Amino acid sequence: RTMLYHLTSSAKLACVLVGLPARGKSYIGQKVARYLQWLGISTKIFNVGQYRRNNFGAQHTHDWFAPTNTSTSVQRTQAAMLALEDMLGWFREGGQVGIYDATNSTRERRALIVSTCQQAGVEIMFVESICDDEQVIMQNIREVKLSSPDYVDMNPEEVIDDFVKRIEHYRAAYQSLEEVEGAYVKLINVGAMYIINQITGFIQSRIVYYLMNLHIQPRSIYLTRHGESFMNLEQRIGGDSDLSPRGEQYAKSLPAFFARHVGDSNTFTVWTSTLKRTMQTAAYLPYRKIQWRALDEIDAGVCDGLTYEEIEQRYPEDFAARDDDKLNYRYRGGESYRDLVARLEPVIMELERQKDVLVIGHQAVLRAIFAYYLNMPLEELPYIKVPLHTVIKMTPKAYKTVMEEFPLHVEAVDTHRDGRKTKKRSAHEMDGAPTNAAAPHDPSPLAA
Amino acid sequence: RTMLYHLTSSAKLACVLVGLPARGKSYIGQKVARYLQWLGISTKIFNVGQYRRNNFGAQHTHDWFAPTNTSTSVQRTQAAMLALEDMLGWFREGGQVGIYDATNSTRERRALIVSTCQQAGVEIMFVESICDDEQVIMQNIREVKLSSPDYVDMNPEEVIDDFVKRIEHYRAAYQSLEEVEGAYVKLINVGAMYIINQITGFIQSRIVYYLMNLHIQPRSIYLTRHGESFMNLEQRIGGDSDLSPRGEQYAKSLPAFFARHVGDSNTFTVWTSTLKRTMQTAAYLPYRKIQWRALDEIDAGVCDGLTYEEIEQRYPEDFAARDDDKLNYRYRGGESYRDLVARLEPVIMELERQKDVLVIGHQAVLRAIFAYYLNMPLEELPYIKVPLHTVIKMTPKAYKTVMEEFPLHVEAVDTHRDGRKTKKRSAHEMDGAPTNAAAPHDPSPLAA
Ligand SMILES: Nc1ncnc2c1ncn2[C@@H]1O[C@H](COP(=O)(O)OP(=O)(O)OP(=O)(O)O)[C@@H](O)[C@H]1O
Ligand SMILES: Nc1ncnc2c1ncn2[C@@H]1O[C@H](COP(=O)(O)OP(=O)(O)OP(=O)(O)O)[C@@H](O)[C@H]1O
Ligand SMILES: [Mg+2]
Ligand SMILES: [Mg+2]
Repeated sequence: RTMLYHLTSSAKLACVLVGLPARGKSYIGQKVARYLQWLGISTKIFNVGQYRRNNFGAQHTHDWFAPTNTSTSVQRTQAAMLALEDMLGWFREGGQVGIYDATNSTRERRALIVSTCQQAGVEIMFVESICDDEQVIMQNIREVKLSSPDYVDMNPEEVIDDFVKRIEHYRAAYQSLEEVEGAYVKLINVGAMYIINQITGFIQSRIVYYLMNLHIQPRSIYLTRHGESFMNLEQRIGGDSDLSPRGEQYAKSLPAFFARHVGDSNTFTVWTSTLKRTMQTAAYLPYRKIQWRALDEIDAGVCDGLTYEEIEQRYPEDFAARDDDKLNYRYRGGESYRDLVARLEPVIMELERQKDVLVIGHQAVLRAIFAYYLNMPLEELPYIKVPLHTVIKMTPKAYKTVMEEFPLHVEAVDTHRDGRKTKKRSAHEMDGAPTNAAAPHDPSPLAA
Repeated sequence: RTMLYHLTSSAKLACVLVGLPARGKSYIGQKVARYLQWLGISTKIFNVGQYRRNNFGAQHTHDWFAPTNTSTSVQRTQAAMLALEDMLGWFREGGQVGIYDATNSTRERRALIVSTCQQAGVEIMFVESICDDEQVIMQNIREVKLSSPDYVDMNPEEVIDDFVKRIEHYRAAYQSLEEVEGAYVKLINVGAMYIINQITGFIQSRIVYYLMNLHIQPRSIYLTRHGESFMNLEQRIGGDSDLSPRGEQYAKSLPAFFARHVGDSNTFTVWTSTLKRTMQTAAYLPYRKIQWRALDEIDAGVCDGLTYEEIEQRYPEDFAARDDDKLNYRYRGGESYRDLVARLEPVIMELERQKDVLVIGHQAVLRAIFAYYLNMPLEELPYIKVPLHTVIKMTPKAYKTVMEEFPLHVEAVDTHRDGRKTKKRSAHEMDGAPTNAAAPHDPSPLAA
């Protein structure tokens, strides 16, 4: 199996979060986990808050968290140790990157984590989020803490008041990371400054680079497949054919849609592949356009231009092998879905940096992009349904991505071929049927 | 033309170096310039020291540089302003990234640069190198200052003594960058720490990530094409054929070569593509192996598996178009050399991070890698001669890469096809004829 990245399989890394409450630690941890999982690196989050809730109940008022509260400090330490033990157990079973999500706000606590991990042969990097922008903090509290399991059936003012007091308790004992504590990255005021200490190693520097590209400004990413092409009509894969008359009609219907959703804009950008059918689909849109070779459809190698029937006839073994393991199957002289993920990594990185963008892509390429945003297991990726002539709007929220489907009601052939042995329908499958934009698909929050 | 990267063509960026003498500023500037040029971004270095030498003579003793020396301060400022004017002129002609290489050690000087650039609509990022490791400084002085045009016909002790005094003069007036000065990255003690302030923008964050991956430990990178394959024998391009008997013989001769040059090692790593001929070439080597899909040969699309004669017959227009502009010509359904560079970018980034590595690649792929290390114009890239059955050893030095060729004397066909209209031989062309390893090819230092 190909190494997409230079990764020794023995690498075990604990990515230990540090920061006061409402500094985006869980947000950051979940994004990093999603990114690494999508790259095929086994990653898991260990959230100490969850261990606290599971073992000692959820609804504590702020004084439960006071460093001076000796009656609860044993429980707080126990929750931390249970999470740590579970993480080390998971490493023993082959886990690669563990994300240890807690405030970890004292040097003493961090030293304990470091020594425990070192004994287990696990490398450590700290990710500290520092923020003294009151507006950001209040916004964070409103966005995620009002709906926290810690505060059920409480009114917003009470929650905010209690949470602010909780932050103050932690602040009283807070010690920012110091150089001697080892490898770390400090994120200061959401992107304003980064301090990077003693970071070496491939995954570590990928994580840092990824964090450097994140922003939290609201935005939406629009995705669509190209309009129906002549090869779609013939049910042939690959190639570089023109749009069919119905595909043209779809291209012509896009400007009105984006006039409503985006309007005039000199920042909105349309990304296409280098294949004609995507550029023709973009043709009538009055926005800046960029072609990405990385957005080209999966390379079907010797099967390029064939129908599925022809592939089955000419390459029966390949056809079966592909149905067996569609994620790893590589077309002769072409690519696998896993190859595609590696090729799309710079696209994902750049999407993180951007504000509003429309990506006009291809079936397999969009599947890979959806898998990232929806945090889907890679194995499910090759079966995602991406209907033709439909715009999908993705809006990243704190712990999830909200999806809305807008079928533009221009007829098209169905190009989806499931091919799974057991035709179980995935929870993540997007439905090709017209949906009501007012009732958005709301994929479940990322594992926390 | 495809945008490999999300780059608005109007972007103009001045990358302004900051640091005491012998902090690796010119080294960093040259590496960044080489990397960006290789990615197809027009980049030029403006070295104030060179303007000083050209306008006011080369050989000044340390007191010429003293901040208290009012008789030379006008000349020092003039040199800085001449370089700045030239840089702005070059931006007006379409330059994209200008690297302004000088100590720029006072806030006043930097404020002048910022205001001048801002008026010209040029964005600025500072790159400050800070180093208080005396051993590194002395090593830097020995490595590059003894041979500086500032010190001709002087004995090493004198040079070191004078240069250390020159550093002291700058130190007296040195002011490290402060947050209010805008976008910057500080490199502290070669990789130990990075501080990144207000960096946004695609190129800016690429530059930062690239700098984060550099190291200055001595190492060598070995490169070779796979052994002769059956398709080489038939003069066919592409495909995925096995090694010919002579190719096998080459594979069997590699272990002895690397036993001499590398010896036993559990860190030395062999990188191959995912094609059989490279893996078979690596088969007898007793080192850790990694397959990179990104190292696969250029995708010849519909021409895969054909001979050049067949291509000329079947696709005469393509054949001519390719000879016209081999860098940008994209095989139907395949790749261009420019596409290849984009695909190899992660490989180059990872090579920067690594110590000793052997890359077993393909003709076009190795051409693209050589172009990076030899700082060649991209236009020359498609014509570099990379002989079969030859190991090339590259050893990065301060301002250049030293190349040595080791033909292993196993016969092979010649697969080089020049195809240029005017058959001028490039200065950068590597010679396929046996060379003496004691007289290495020593490509001229990078433009400074
Ligand atoms: N670097 C950052 N600095 C500050 N806020 C951020 C950052 N990154 C993301 N956020 C915001 O943080 C919010 C989510 O907060 P999150 O729940 O992750 O905080 P937390 O640090 O995990 O708090 P707690 O300690 O209570 O678990 C989101 O609204 C997100 O926009
Ligand atoms: N980040 C770094 N910190 C310190 N030394 C470095 C760094 N990067 C590279 N070097 C070393 O710096 C040496 C080259 O020094 P260089 O000539 O670039 O210094 P300089 O800052 O340009 O000096 P001057 O101000 O005299 O022009 C090389 O030997 C290289 O190994
Ligand atoms: Mg949290
Ligand atoms: Mg210099």
